[in-house]
Amino acid sequence: AIDAARLIERIKELGAIGRDEAGRLCRVAGTDADREGRDLLCEWLKQAGLRIEVDRIGNIYGIWEPEDASGEPVVMGSHIDTVIDAGIYDGCFGVLAGLAVIEAMQQASLRPARPLAVVAYTNEEGVRFAPDMMGSLVAAGGLATDDALAAIGTDGTTLGAELARIGYAGSREPGFLRPHAYVELHIEQGPVLEAEGLPIGAVENLQGISWQRVSIAGTANHAGTTPMVMRRDAGVAAGRAIAFLDDLARRTRDAVATVGTIRFEPNAINVIPSAAVFTVDLRNPDEDRLRSQEAALQRFLDGLVTEGYEVRTERLARFEPVIFAPEIVSAVEESAGQRQLPCRRMTSGAGHDAQMIARVAPAAMIFVPSKGGISHNPAEFTADHELIAGANVLLDVTRKLSQ
Amino acid sequence: AIDAARLIERIKELGAIGRDEAGRLCRVAGTDADREGRDLLCEWLKQAGLRIEVDRIGNIYGIWEPEDASGEPVVMGSHIDTVIDAGIYDGCFGVLAGLAVIEAMQQASLRPARPLAVVAYTNEEGVRFAPDMMGSLVAAGGLATDDALAAIGTDGTTLGAELARIGYAGSREPGFLRPHAYVELHIEQGPVLEAEGLPIGAVENLQGISWQRVSIAGTANHAGTTPMVMRRDAGVAAGRAIAFLDDLARRTRDAVATVGTIRFEPNAINVIPSAAVFTVDLRNPDEDRLRSQEAALQRFLDGLVTEGYEVRTERLARFEPVIFAPEIVSAVEESAGQRQLPCRRMTSGAGHDAQMIARVAPAAMIFVPSKGGISHNPAEFTADHELIAGANVLLDVTRKLSQ
Ligand SMILES: NC(=O)NCCC(=O)O
Ligand SMILES: NC(=O)NCCC(=O)O
Repeated sequence: AIDAARLIERIKELGAIGRDEAGRLCRVAGTDADREGRDLLCEWLKQAGLRIEVDRIGNIYGIWEPEDASGEPVVMGSHIDTVIDAGIYDGCFGVLAGLAVIEAMQQASLRPARPLAVVAYTNEEGVRFAPDMMGSLVAAGGLATDDALAAIGTDGTTLGAELARIGYAGSREPGFLRPHAYVELHIEQGPVLEAEGLPIGAVENLQGISWQRVSIAGTANHAGTTPMVMRRDAGVAAGRAIAFLDDLARRTRDAVATVGTIRFEPNAINVIPSAAVFTVDLRNPDEDRLRSQEAALQRFLDGLVTEGYEVRTERLARFEPVIFAPEIVSAVEESAGQRQLPCRRMTSGAGHDAQMIARVAPAAMIFVPSKGGISHNPAEFTADHELIAGANVLLDVTRKLSQ
Repeated sequence: AIDAARLIERIKELGAIGRDEAGRLCRVAGTDADREGRDLLCEWLKQAGLRIEVDRIGNIYGIWEPEDASGEPVVMGSHIDTVIDAGIYDGCFGVLAGLAVIEAMQQASLRPARPLAVVAYTNEEGVRFAPDMMGSLVAAGGLATDDALAAIGTDGTTLGAELARIGYAGSREPGFLRPHAYVELHIEQGPVLEAEGLPIGAVENLQGISWQRVSIAGTANHAGTTPMVMRRDAGVAAGRAIAFLDDLARRTRDAVATVGTIRFEPNAINVIPSAAVFTVDLRNPDEDRLRSQEAALQRFLDGLVTEGYEVRTERLARFEPVIFAPEIVSAVEESAGQRQLPCRRMTSGAGHDAQMIARVAPAAMIFVPSKGGISHNPAEFTADHELIAGANVLLDVTRKLSQ
């Protein structure tokens, strides 16, 4: 079984790295904080005697090749980059649990028939460089390495330059390691398991994700002298779009919609905004419904053009819904059953590296509950016993897949 | 008559000062650019032989005391600070025309019975330090000098520190110079005069101004996993507020409403905003209607509190509508009539220093047309002959008031 104390200890230790002056966890991809987190992970991988490989997009692999093991490895993993003001579990849990599984098997002198690997993918969160799930997307061949390295961050830097700067622009070609199977253990980041009192989720699919940046241009003018009927207020157009998207998602089955970022120009109290730039995150487990959300947004924006605004949309990410490998999903259910852990099949609301790796290998995910469904927030919490239960299911599934 | 060529030349020369790398005019109060503009103005005041006085809030006076003149001076003026990405006329025109009037009277060897003064008030625009019209408000005794100097800017500096830094924290006590009368010539910054083909507006009142900062706190959470019904999205609350204020102003007589600035926290594409902070600029020439706009906003915000948001409002500025001195308004009409310049009485949509000085002296304003009604925008434009016509009316009115 998993070394519970060590896993919990490591989650906390990694979670202490990348705190800003205000104490907020901001271990954003390609930053100095990311480097520190990576350094610590590599130290642990080395302590476990794993062979460390870093590819050109900065994905870190720790590979265990037991005697007589052969063929493609069974891979566990996730990511260790975080959002701004993050919790400590998102991503890190899956990576550190993967390492704990290998250590448990080493400890028990198990001899899997296949090599095992744990991976931390670069820039899963996508808050600085779009798209998200970038390292796994590149590893799966869905995005050219050089295009990903050229991604321009919110601060104007490129991911390639930042990876080189922090010493994690590796030499291996992304995709060099083709998994026999990929299993990702993750906190749910949503409210379902907690609400239903279930410790384990067997994730059978993952919803489609549509990210766009919308730029609306109106006309700057004086806030006091310009009659309402003569205005082309880009801020009002943005405000209406935000309200529209929220209403649309509420009346579309299984849909969510989020405007997470916004900026006005010139951003002065008594000047009608000449421009509003905001991001749109639309999701739906059903591709047709996701397309209809996108189409409704487009019609709304076309309406703004008719009103005299200039509107530009920029595609930041677009991923279709993914169906995970049924045999791995069944293995998760089986393990949970044997361990007397109530379990349900479910959909992932968040994007995950598993959805990218599913393009090139059988993949699935294991979820554990998130208190209050809260994530991307320092209040993110999963109890120790729930983390350990999930890690033990990962152990079972990995043993089975590596037989 | 006014030296037309020199006035036009100076407007352009001052308008070239304070350009940022992108060529945008940003001569914002208390900045290095503001210092440069002030230095140039003082040079011109000196050239005209005026006595320069600077008060503690940085208001610059150029005073002409002709032989035998006595009593309180007739004051002309406006401001030379600008918004971000401004036009060249707003404020500067009134100051430079005031100087041109004094020079014209000197040139013609006129001997007014009263001293004349031209003034450039500090921080009329209020884009960095609230409230706007700050220098004239302090000079009129409506705000304690030390409180104004302690105003914290959008960049965290204080106005007092910035004035000291740029060398314009003067020694005179604000209000040291009490005007016999105050006349402010200004571009309309609105569409009325152009639409009606009139070269001169006799401004008889000025609408009330209400500035607030609204901070809405919701709950940060994951954009993908959080069902719509479980969200408390501060960005959506802000979007709704923006749309609400726009609708409200459209159905309230003579009302305008502007949300010019906004900020989300944590401002990440896949995180539901935990906070949205925006400014609200409400105006109405009628105090009761302005109060009802404010009350409607408050009810809307109370509704958000009922929905579970935390809402905080902060008062940035509040000025009641102002009625200008009828005898000066009549003098403007009279001069326009004598010069065959069609003229109408009108309301000022923008706040102006004249509205503050009206508390302590008879005051009024003269407007000239703004092309397309555009202001607070580099496209701000008034034709040279329109500027000169306005300056000549200012000359007539000032002569009359200083007899
Ligand atoms: N799991 C997770 O938070 N992924 C980030 C990508 C997203 O779903 O927005
Ligand atoms: N005249 C002018 O632009 N004043 C700034 C104050 C305001 O009206 O917002």
